[in-house]
Amino acid sequence: MNAAGSSFDWNRGFALDFALTDGLSQTAVSTKRRLSQMRGMYSDDAAFEALVEREDPLVYEFYELGAPERAGDLAFGTSITYPGRVGREYFMTKGHFHTILDTAEVYYCLSGRGVMLMENPEGDVVWIPLEPGKVAYVPRRYAHRSVNTGDTPFVTFFVFRADAGHDYGTIEKKGCRKLVVEQDGAPRMIDNPKWK
Amino acid sequence: MNAAGSSFDWNRGFALDFALTDGLSQTAVSTKRRLSQMRGMYSDDAAFEALVEREDPLVYEFYELGAPERAGDLAFGTSITYPGRVGREYFMTKGHFHTILDTAEVYYCLSGRGVMLMENPEGDVVWIPLEPGKVAYVPRRYAHRSVNTGDTPFVTFFVFRADAGHDYGTIEKKGCRKLVVEQDGAPRMIDNPKWK
Repeated sequence: MNAAGSSFDWNRGFALDFALTDGLSQTAVSTKRRLSQMRGMYSDDAAFEALVEREDPLVYEFYELGAPERAGDLAFGTSITYPGRVGREYFMTKGHFHTILDTAEVYYCLSGRGVMLMENPEGDVVWIPLEPGKVAYVPRRYAHRSVNTGDTPFVTFFVFRADAGHDYGTIEKKGCRKLVVEQDGAPRMIDNPKWK
Repeated sequence: MNAAGSSFDWNRGFALDFALTDGLSQTAVSTKRRLSQMRGMYSDDAAFEALVEREDPLVYEFYELGAPERAGDLAFGTSITYPGRVGREYFMTKGHFHTILDTAEVYYCLSGRGVMLMENPEGDVVWIPLEPGKVAYVPRRYAHRSVNTGDTPFVTFFVFRADAGHDYGTIEKKGCRKLVVEQDGAPRMIDNPKWK
């Protein structure tokens, strides 16, 4: 019951727990991303290296349940981005396009405060602020990244087509066009100087 | 912003509110089903007519946001089934197959207590008990109905492929193979004598 396979019965159905508070499951095993796994993705390299050296914090975790990659199935789980910053830039997920670009995703915020930062290949950038009880509709063709702009875990429940696939490489290589940084105590979107 | 159309931007994304407690939106308009709209669907016709005559209660409501019916989009919303019984049978939704039978659905329970009652065309019946923080995976090919087995509103957040479509007619004509009734204070699944 982990990222590599699935012990769930996708053909006859099943129940699974995700706490409405912290988003964690007592049954499924999460995938964890520490800061050291995100080298090059934050704008302030010096702050990044200092923080990795000091504690290499857990930046986010999420669930991959191993849904069969069929167009009629749905992958789902929770995503938990922890509070923190690298320099002025808020903790965030790596962000990804779907391999099948024309597939959407739904994120329902359960706890915390954050932003869904999105961009399409043509360069259109959209950001959707989230708080508990708000859904973000991530449309077809938009890469998306969760950014925690608060000071508690930012927890969302997500669903997408199980065959959509993840393209992490594009964002890893090019970056996102925009950064979300703290300025005068509030989140602000600025151009990403590293964007290629 | 209602069942007939959509004022949401499915191509660039949007945010929408659904309270984590009662499931209601302050922005979208729900579709409501009163008991009189479910004639013939409960086993006890005398109890049904008496209750319709007395108060015709609101049995359930849910959201239809008018997502474009494209395979890459997702329809989502909340479903709220109110507590009550018709004779021994718990309040429930009409239940439906998807028109594109091979499409799944995800239901995340936010509040209350209930059962997702499911059956496929071959007659396999599955029931999944739900409570807050539990997800039910409704697999491809299974009709599904929400049943409130508790005494507070049974609230779920659902997501399915936007082109899946709804086939209500099959269940309306044939019924479900099983009923969920109260017996000695607990829910129990029994054969539906009206099933054709």
